Amino acid sequence: MSIQTPARPELTVETSGGVPHRVRDLTLAESGRHQIRLAEHEMPGLMSLRDEFGPHQPLAGARIAGSLHMTVQTAVLIETLVALGAEVRWASCNIFSTQDEAAAAVVVGRTGTPESPAGTPVFAWKGETLEEYWWATQQIFDFGTDDSGAPIGPTLILDDGGDATLLVHKGVQFEAAGGVPEAAPGDSHEYGVILGVLRDSMQSDPQRWTRIAAGIQGVTEETTTGVHRLYELHRDGKLLFPAINVNDSVTKSKFDNKYGIRHSLPDGLNRATDVLMGGKTVFVCGYGDVGKGSADALRGQGARVIVSEIDPINALQAAMDGYQVARLDDHLGEIDILVTATGNENVVTVEQLQKLKNLAIVANVGHFDNEIDMAGLESLPGAERIEIKPQVHEWRLPTGTSILVLSEGRLMNLGNATGHPSFVMSASFTNQVLAQLELHTRLDQYPTGVYVLPKFLDEKVARLHLDALGARLTTLTPRQAQYIGVPSEGPYKVDHYRY
Amino acid sequence: MSIQTPARPELTVETSGGVPHRVRDLTLAESGRHQIRLAEHEMPGLMSLRDEFGPHQPLAGARIAGSLHMTVQTAVLIETLVALGAEVRWASCNIFSTQDEAAAAVVVGRTGTPESPAGTPVFAWKGETLEEYWWATQQIFDFGTDDSGAPIGPTLILDDGGDATLLVHKGVQFEAAGGVPEAAPGDSHEYGVILGVLRDSMQSDPQRWTRIAAGIQGVTEETTTGVHRLYELHRDGKLLFPAINVNDSVTKSKFDNKYGIRHSLPDGLNRATDVLMGGKTVFVCGYGDVGKGSADALRGQGARVIVSEIDPINALQAAMDGYQVARLDDHLGEIDILVTATGNENVVTVEQLQKLKNLAIVANVGHFDNEIDMAGLESLPGAERIEIKPQVHEWRLPTGTSILVLSEGRLMNLGNATGHPSFVMSASFTNQVLAQLELHTRLDQYPTGVYVLPKFLDEKVARLHLDALGARLTTLTPRQAQYIGVPSEGPYKVDHYRY
Amino acid sequence: MSIQTPARPELTVETSGGVPHRVRDLTLAESGRHQIRLAEHEMPGLMSLRDEFGPHQPLAGARIAGSLHMTVQTAVLIETLVALGAEVRWASCNIFSTQDEAAAAVVVGRTGTPESPAGTPVFAWKGETLEEYWWATQQIFDFGTDDSGAPIGPTLILDDGGDATLLVHKGVQFEAAGGVPEAAPGDSHEYGVILGVLRDSMQSDPQRWTRIAAGIQGVTEETTTGVHRLYELHRDGKLLFPAINVNDSVTKSKFDNKYGIRHSLPDGLNRATDVLMGGKTVFVCGYGDVGKGSADALRGQGARVIVSEIDPINALQAAMDGYQVARLDDHLGEIDILVTATGNENVVTVEQLQKLKNLAIVANVGHFDNEIDMAGLESLPGAERIEIKPQVHEWRLPTGTSILVLSEGRLMNLGNATGHPSFVMSASFTNQVLAQLELHTRLDQYPTGVYVLPKFLDEKVARLHLDALGARLTTLTPRQAQYIGVPSEGPYKVDHYRY
Amino acid sequence: MSIQTPARPELTVETSGGVPHRVRDLTLAESGRHQIRLAEHEMPGLMSLRDEFGPHQPLAGARIAGSLHMTVQTAVLIETLVALGAEVRWASCNIFSTQDEAAAAVVVGRTGTPESPAGTPVFAWKGETLEEYWWATQQIFDFGTDDSGAPIGPTLILDDGGDATLLVHKGVQFEAAGGVPEAAPGDSHEYGVILGVLRDSMQSDPQRWTRIAAGIQGVTEETTTGVHRLYELHRDGKLLFPAINVNDSVTKSKFDNKYGIRHSLPDGLNRATDVLMGGKTVFVCGYGDVGKGSADALRGQGARVIVSEIDPINALQAAMDGYQVARLDDHLGEIDILVTATGNENVVTVEQLQKLKNLAIVANVGHFDNEIDMAGLESLPGAERIEIKPQVHEWRLPTGTSILVLSEGRLMNLGNATGHPSFVMSASFTNQVLAQLELHTRLDQYPTGVYVLPKFLDEKVARLHLDALGARLTTLTPRQAQYIGVPSEGPYKVDHYRY
Repeated sequence: MSIQTPARPELTVETSGGVPHRVRDLTLAESGRHQIRLAEHEMPGLMSLRDEFGPHQPLAGARIAGSLHMTVQTAVLIETLVALGAEVRWASCNIFSTQDEAAAAVVVGRTGTPESPAGTPVFAWKGETLEEYWWATQQIFDFGTDDSGAPIGPTLILDDGGDATLLVHKGVQFEAAGGVPEAAPGDSHEYGVILGVLRDSMQSDPQRWTRIAAGIQGVTEETTTGVHRLYELHRDGKLLFPAINVNDSVTKSKFDNKYGIRHSLPDGLNRATDVLMGGKTVFVCGYGDVGKGSADALRGQGARVIVSEIDPINALQAAMDGYQVARLDDHLGEIDILVTATGNENVVTVEQLQKLKNLAIVANVGHFDNEIDMAGLESLPGAERIEIKPQVHEWRLPTGTSILVLSEGRLMNLGNATGHPSFVMSASFTNQVLAQLELHTRLDQYPTGVYVLPKFLDEKVARLHLDALGARLTTLTPRQAQYIGVPSEGPYKVDHYRY
Repeated sequence: MSIQTPARPELTVETSGGVPHRVRDLTLAESGRHQIRLAEHEMPGLMSLRDEFGPHQPLAGARIAGSLHMTVQTAVLIETLVALGAEVRWASCNIFSTQDEAAAAVVVGRTGTPESPAGTPVFAWKGETLEEYWWATQQIFDFGTDDSGAPIGPTLILDDGGDATLLVHKGVQFEAAGGVPEAAPGDSHEYGVILGVLRDSMQSDPQRWTRIAAGIQGVTEETTTGVHRLYELHRDGKLLFPAINVNDSVTKSKFDNKYGIRHSLPDGLNRATDVLMGGKTVFVCGYGDVGKGSADALRGQGARVIVSEIDPINALQAAMDGYQVARLDDHLGEIDILVTATGNENVVTVEQLQKLKNLAIVANVGHFDNEIDMAGLESLPGAERIEIKPQVHEWRLPTGTSILVLSEGRLMNLGNATGHPSFVMSASFTNQVLAQLELHTRLDQYPTGVYVLPKFLDEKVARLHLDALGARLTTLTPRQAQYIGVPSEGPYKVDHYRY
Repeated sequence: MSIQTPARPELTVETSGGVPHRVRDLTLAESGRHQIRLAEHEMPGLMSLRDEFGPHQPLAGARIAGSLHMTVQTAVLIETLVALGAEVRWASCNIFSTQDEAAAAVVVGRTGTPESPAGTPVFAWKGETLEEYWWATQQIFDFGTDDSGAPIGPTLILDDGGDATLLVHKGVQFEAAGGVPEAAPGDSHEYGVILGVLRDSMQSDPQRWTRIAAGIQGVTEETTTGVHRLYELHRDGKLLFPAINVNDSVTKSKFDNKYGIRHSLPDGLNRATDVLMGGKTVFVCGYGDVGKGSADALRGQGARVIVSEIDPINALQAAMDGYQVARLDDHLGEIDILVTATGNENVVTVEQLQKLKNLAIVANVGHFDNEIDMAGLESLPGAERIEIKPQVHEWRLPTGTSILVLSEGRLMNLGNATGHPSFVMSASFTNQVLAQLELHTRLDQYPTGVYVLPKFLDEKVARLHLDALGARLTTLTPRQAQYIGVPSEGPYKVDHYRY
Repeated sequence: MSIQTPARPELTVETSGGVPHRVRDLTLAESGRHQIRLAEHEMPGLMSLRDEFGPHQPLAGARIAGSLHMTVQTAVLIETLVALGAEVRWASCNIFSTQDEAAAAVVVGRTGTPESPAGTPVFAWKGETLEEYWWATQQIFDFGTDDSGAPIGPTLILDDGGDATLLVHKGVQFEAAGGVPEAAPGDSHEYGVILGVLRDSMQSDPQRWTRIAAGIQGVTEETTTGVHRLYELHRDGKLLFPAINVNDSVTKSKFDNKYGIRHSLPDGLNRATDVLMGGKTVFVCGYGDVGKGSADALRGQGARVIVSEIDPINALQAAMDGYQVARLDDHLGEIDILVTATGNENVVTVEQLQKLKNLAIVANVGHFDNEIDMAGLESLPGAERIEIKPQVHEWRLPTGTSILVLSEGRLMNLGNATGHPSFVMSASFTNQVLAQLELHTRLDQYPTGVYVLPKFLDEKVARLHLDALGARLTTLTPRQAQYIGVPSEGPYKVDHYRY
């Protein structure tokens, strides 16, 4: 492994032997602990699960390898999993998204010190290189050795974007093939790094991933992209263990995507640029849940919002919601703020970037950094990049105009803001915990395949968040329940109900 | 048959023999024709279908028995079906919802006169009795006789609420049983009327409904309630022919329910009461699509909106959308306008009605008139009903307060306003026409069962409505389509996508 | 006088001798009485004044000549004035705006019958000719004769638009000049009618208006236009008596204009056309209070709203509120609904009308019918006018397209809807009553000039409307009042505060 | 003077002799310069003034003493004043509000270096003590000496909150009285500091302030509070020179207060707490312009907003805008976020703070830190203050609950966010520059008194901001201008128009 000294080794830790990295900064950990305490107040779903299940330790025996943005909210998730009995190791799923104080606080734990941590091993810091990132991802699979010295792996993966799951599947594939191929010419740099990691791994232990995969009972996946990969693996007969699609719980996708971005898009714009949104012309590419939340937030701040869509149904929704529906090319010269929310690639081309209004702001809340053609921009002759501040760059274009690109074209709600707020993440993560519980305690119900959580659990997640908002639910009388043909206590809707 | 002389016989007509009723009022028909012409402008989906399919007459040979509110918009639907080659007969599905001028115009046709109508037979007028209503419903199954004198029935039903389908299924059931039972003590008055109709029918023709059912290739159903009945029939093995659930097309349920009610709820309140909505406290029971549209419309008029829900997911949506979520009982004394949008029964009890603020307005946009306990109100000792104007009644209660009940507790968007506007109905009805086309031209794809339209047709409906709004759709490049794994021309989403 | 038989004589009445017209339609009066009762519930300001002042009869001795739309709400105003002791005579200020049932109910009174009316004389019916209109306006100045047979005139005018005030001022002017001039070539038809009325008057009584004017203590004026005329009269030294500008009370202009139109613009669109506003492109000319209310209402219904303005401050407000600010000429081909809200003339020209989208709806909520160039349209060669229904006309243009013009270019919130709702009118009319009280009881405070009501009365109007909305006001502690330097009980703001 | 070494002396500078402090941090200045460049893009009003007036140097000869938050936006203001020919010295008007990088960049200037600054002297840094603050305020009055060695003072004050003006008036008063009194027992600590400053001053130069006052031609004041003081001084006959009330320009008060806070309130909440606003219950005290902007912003983020008011007119506006209007005491246990926007004192008492929901957030955007009773909280026995991070404190209360207090009860939009965004400040500051121009070039029009800018200048400010938003203004035709009786080029409204 080529990573000898992680850039922020004081933020990686190993409590039960092995690599001797330690959190060294107690102030950082204390600040993180304060923030975690406040976040707990905003994560009533997770705290309710601790109350309900903590005494019974239903996750006892579970070893969870987690790969998900190492934020304050994730700290509450991790500590909930531990409170339910699990043993946990964690890495971030994004090189920029770690909040170091949260990582430090988790490692130190409530009762520990940097010298004698009492928390959970975390391998993550803000600003990893790709090499460091994949090194860290590897660490979450290593739960030490048993009495016989045999290595112990995880029983479950908790994944966001599918990187941990990818590593296992690729490892198994190459181990079966007897070798790791060289990167092909068109492959991304990152894929080369992954191949390198697996090549090193095979050299030191040729059956490592095969053995790890055998011990894994399942994975719960957070995101659209990760879920997409899982369905493809399953369709191709390559899925190695059951998967629960947490992303498509209503209380995840409809809340995280829509209400989360409504919060964090303007937050990121503010922190990045302090620009007034009122009166500005904003163009939002895509009117899925993320686009809906984006448009709503910006209108709420007094912007004029124009929307583009490729799906006629979503386009009609945008029109009915009062937005002009148009093509990007027809409005390039009017746009003050350009937001991509599609999950597709090359939604904004280099040609289009050059026709934008001077100092137009370009912000991606969709998915990868190819949503805006950043690669094309980087290789554009005559273009110059000036760092205004971290994650905010002015690109001076050969046309003579400038644009402001946030988070280098990556998710600006993470890069320029702090991602989704705790309350929204509480809904997502309560789904995650319930999904981990399903796989650990009712595995026989889940033959290899991809599942969404049953609707009554989805409703339960919602239910656990209402009290904190002062919302009082109405109860069906038995006669009313019978009249509409549902149980009084739910589930209340047919599966295809769209909310 | 006990209906000798329909109340408005001039609005029922039989062009090919039989009962000699005629539209007598040419002014009425001309007014209807004007309104139909304007509605056509607002129904771009239906007009596009005429352009696309008219030349090919794909519905040639289809005989469609339609039971759906006989409004101006339905006139455009009927004339579209005819333009595609179908033979059509029509009744309304609600005793109050017929717009007489629309009915007259359809009967007279573009080139006919009252004496020599050139249009489509319609059996409907505003303000039918229940007896008249079921008499009219029967008429849509009688397409005359063939050369041999054998009666001809419909090949397809286009249904709204399932009354036409119910009549066929009950008829078949009783004919098989050899007799129609007496109404049981708890049965509704209306069920007694239905039994009477079928008893008369069996006396005159003991195999009538069995024969009609045999000729029916399928039904397309408009509403949640009708669809619910169809799924129950299918679950119980009693469904006699395939059914297409039009209600659950996205372009129907999400548009009709949400955007339609957003339009017609305030319209109905205005026409009924002229009351200022701004500043008023409105309580909306239910936050499904209809509740969402209701709350949005009232907030848009400056009302303070409180929402009740039984489903925690919908409740959480209401909270996230900024509404107070509460129980009706806790706010009875504050409510200026009470809206029910649940589809359940007894959502507002007589006890609750008596605790409302003086002159509170009570409006149902959910489903049946048992959503508010109108039966209980009618039998409440000391309650007095004063007609302010048609469909607007003041109930003086024994408590000394009054309430204003709209449309006698029935759907006030139909009773006090003119229902959903043309544009919204265009989306619903374009689905209906596409569904009729599916059953008539690709019946082999639909073994007996209940189906939703394939997603690409749902998207097509949306697509046909965008141009009229000036909305320009963005096109996927082939590479982008491949990147997200969909065809460039759609469908674009997985089936469980919620929009 | 050339009006021998008013078109609806049964709606004019004279209780104390003179012209023997009578309300003949008791059903009409009963329907009006029901509506008045419901309106009283929505007019808490007026009802509070009855409670507070009724016992003291502060308007005893006042004779009020009222010229204001004779609607149900005005009926509550009239009966409030009477309840406070005034003697009242009424005409409408618009040939179309009378609600006949309200007029009938006022004339009959609570305890009267058509044969023996116990109410207040009203001279107004829906659909007057201009000749009838000015005949009716004259009647409100004739309060019979005293014991000596000398004619009695009003002591106060309550005016809307200034027609009653105009008649007095013109009458005095011509009587002083000794004769009424002929209409000049460019004069409007209406001005000719006025001259005719005054000519007839001078013939029968050459000092009539001079005598009437001498008895008038003041006028309270409802509208921007009327107020504008008053300021001009005063500037030119021609104002004959003090005037209170009710229009510029905050609780009038900010409420009536903004919240009233927010209610009645969509209402009028619905009643006229039933067109879906959602998804449509609406262009609103003018972003004053009426434009603000219009834009807000249409956005609340899901329309895309574009705004035009000539004032840069209002334009910037529109932009900050999220609307596109543009010129009408640049969007003619996109507009589904065109709303004028400027109070200026020729805001939409005939050339622009011809470039609108086919079947675009044209609606004026600004002021006169010259806001849209109706005169130009009427004289456009090749243009054809088709009445869809009363107040809704399709104009087929020589360009081949049609437009729908509402209320013949006059105020469509009055012509197609029922004007401002009761609650909004309650605020306006409470100002009117307070203004009448000021002039009648504290005339010495008002030397000839134009005044707005003192701020504490404006605040009082608001205060009288809060309870009905369930709004609870917070009270300043004495220390807080001192801290911001205002009396605890108000007034709270400096005069130039903008709200 | 007791301040020997300012805490951040590297941020204070004197270019023309005297105290030898220098900006030492070029990186800071460079970062500030980048931010100023981006802000210039968002401040089109100021940049237009540079274009229009720069060549004519109309402020040549003006010496401006500025006391206003030393932010990036203020830097653009300062450099605009200099570009128009003025000599300028600056201090902040708040101990926390300085952005050090902006101060550094202004001092260094575009072409200077820390060693050889070419900019404008600034005496301000983030986190001054009160002693340092008043020391810095003194420095802006010292423009060196003339050839004869006589001290030179400012000709104009540009003030925010009135501290610079206060110092001059108090200095003159005490110099006339021949001595500075001791602080009285109830006086604030700050007043004691002011007295100390003036006492030191009188000792070294007994006619200093009298001489300075004599040279001052006028002041332009930014805020409500400062304006209030000016009107009081004028009422009491103590105002020493004319004052222009910039605060009450429409383009200042209506924009800064409403649209500025709409931007910065949610921004501050996010930066302070990252709390989801959606679904939360927010209580806003006060519905003036600041309260309106606050409520709008929070509703736009999906919060349920309750409003309290003492003024019935504003209360009625809140109700008409759809907010529940209630008293704070009735909702204490439901509130997640409590916002004060009144400008009054003791609006939230210590008793009320103790009844709030656990971890409720308390945020002041009104005025001083006595709006929430911070003094009472600080002296509450058993209350404990924990710093979560700077400007975010958890107060553990003796009741067992905690609250989160932002910015120690001071303006959280400044303390937790970055204040109003550039575009909003551009409108305010364009008014400031125009006001300075009025006083410098047309002083004869302004005898001692308090003035608002003439309406055509207010309109000009708006006009200069429209192009940047892509807003196109409509132009009155001469005939239209005549019709409504205004000049084509404005001003368009009567003075009492409320916008």
